[in-house]
Amino acid sequence: MTRKVPAMSEPSGLVAALRDCTTVLISVHKNPDGDALGSQLGLMLGLEKIGKKVFLHNLDPVPEIYRFLPGTDRITSGPSVKGAYDAFIVLDADPPRTGLFNGSWPARTLINIDHHVTNPREWPLTWLDPEATATGEMIYRLMTGLRIPFDKDMAICLYTAIFTDTGSFRYSNTTPESMRIAATLIEAGADPWMVTENVYESYAFKRIRLLGKVLSGIEQSRDGRIAWVLVTDDLYRQTGTSAEDTDSFVNFVRSIKGVEVAVLFRQTGAAQYKISLRAKGRVDLSGLATSLGGGGHKNAAGGVLDGTFTDVRDKVIDAVAQALEAQMGKGPQAAS
Amino acid sequence: MTRKVPAMSEPSGLVAALRDCTTVLISVHKNPDGDALGSQLGLMLGLEKIGKKVFLHNLDPVPEIYRFLPGTDRITSGPSVKGAYDAFIVLDADPPRTGLFNGSWPARTLINIDHHVTNPREWPLTWLDPEATATGEMIYRLMTGLRIPFDKDMAICLYTAIFTDTGSFRYSNTTPESMRIAATLIEAGADPWMVTENVYESYAFKRIRLLGKVLSGIEQSRDGRIAWVLVTDDLYRQTGTSAEDTDSFVNFVRSIKGVEVAVLFRQTGAAQYKISLRAKGRVDLSGLATSLGGGGHKNAAGGVLDGTFTDVRDKVIDAVAQALEAQMGKGPQAAS
Repeated sequence: MTRKVPAMSEPSGLVAALRDCTTVLISVHKNPDGDALGSQLGLMLGLEKIGKKVFLHNLDPVPEIYRFLPGTDRITSGPSVKGAYDAFIVLDADPPRTGLFNGSWPARTLINIDHHVTNPREWPLTWLDPEATATGEMIYRLMTGLRIPFDKDMAICLYTAIFTDTGSFRYSNTTPESMRIAATLIEAGADPWMVTENVYESYAFKRIRLLGKVLSGIEQSRDGRIAWVLVTDDLYRQTGTSAEDTDSFVNFVRSIKGVEVAVLFRQTGAAQYKISLRAKGRVDLSGLATSLGGGGHKNAAGGVLDGTFTDVRDKVIDAVAQALEAQMGKGPQAAS
Repeated sequence: MTRKVPAMSEPSGLVAALRDCTTVLISVHKNPDGDALGSQLGLMLGLEKIGKKVFLHNLDPVPEIYRFLPGTDRITSGPSVKGAYDAFIVLDADPPRTGLFNGSWPARTLINIDHHVTNPREWPLTWLDPEATATGEMIYRLMTGLRIPFDKDMAICLYTAIFTDTGSFRYSNTTPESMRIAATLIEAGADPWMVTENVYESYAFKRIRLLGKVLSGIEQSRDGRIAWVLVTDDLYRQTGTSAEDTDSFVNFVRSIKGVEVAVLFRQTGAAQYKISLRAKGRVDLSGLATSLGGGGHKNAAGGVLDGTFTDVRDKVIDAVAQALEAQMGKGPQAAS
């Protein structure tokens, strides 16, 4: 079968720099996800096959659901990087997002590999491919270019990277090329159900109870285009959970028919709420970041606001409703 | 890239029979799913390209979430099949599971195409490939064999068939071959996010409220290997929902870490409950079907029991606990 998506090749300078070094430190962004960790571990396993001494360090520890990845015990974490290396490779983010800069970087050769179009390419050895589904896909191509064969552990890591960044091949970034790479990685030993069970079927019991209580209180705007849920300190107490247990809850709200924007309000103080917004693809949220006191891009935005829940909710829902009306016109049952 | 999964070719008799006929009726099983409907519509669109007159009839109507599939307006439904055809093709099930047999079948040439290993192959022209991920994959191969090109509508139908039968490429039936076929179907016009949005992101608002209330009441066995939820008539009333809104709820229960068997109890009368069991793959549920008064296979079983909820629950949970202990030994925190 043919490759329809052009595979942007890695810069030759990057390959030469890798060949020249012996010790390599690899880091990824804060709050690492499946693509960051799968890419980091897959690259480590590959570089070790060609004789490199590889070290892994991130600001944050590996989340529970990714501890099944081969080699996670090799990842150290914390705010300060120790030692000096021939090369420092930052994956899946521009370097400042590692949260590890303290006046200097721990190597002379600095390499950045990323697929986020927003990356400002500050390092000369930046390989940025916004067409790539995941950074894991770029690592797959780099390994192929270096003629490093894929063993089972590498396959699991890179499969997980592509699998999680596409939401198990559901999102619009799913390309024929990413599916063919995934197919090859299954042949090399990645087990789709094993990865699924770890990533999507390992919820804590208390977390499902919290999800139930949160969804029981779901509300929607009159036109049905905005829906929201609230997680209070009281719900955390009732279920013995904490903020990290709410990860991905906003996706359930987004999954409702007719909803264009889903909102998750999480209590973070007596009168403070953290807001997470998710869009279904027809409305652009990036302009909302300022009014929410936070950041964002097209399909996701967030921030933290002070006030009573009623005040915060009204402010956020009004801002979202205005964005919807400006971009899509009035909703189907909008009143006035 | 190489094909590692052997592609069992369709029987030549089947191709000859198809070439010989002009009018074709295609039916699928009761309660049709994405694979059944995607295969049915994909085959119709393909056969029309080579001049066949194709008719579609099923016992049950097309569920709401699959109405986005091109051609669903062509599917009639109901218990009786009208007319006579040159060929009658049953997809994704053995013919009795269509629920359409009333003493005779509506054609002389009978063709059955299925990937379920349990199919008894009663029709001489049965093409059964248990290695196929989905019946949709077999239709893809049949179209390729007949040199029928894939247009966008066919691609959407067959992509949806494979996508839904693998749970969006999550289940253990996901093969390299199925992913490469999906890649080709994306190139032919299938849009992964459009299919996802229709299949997985089109829940009714009331359904998410019901899910919340149901999950709020989740319970588990002492050893954490069984978890269950209950849907009562009262919850349906509170949320304006009905039994069909509980579809896939049991999957949320199964997604809990440590849970081997998930149970959904649905009230179907003052003292009657319908039971759905799902296993994670390490325990075989097929032996439980008898004690539940229903049917089942390895990863799923179900039935209907009369009694108070407490009686029914105790009976089912005891039976599951015994099956677990017999097959896997005592659980980690089992008491006695």
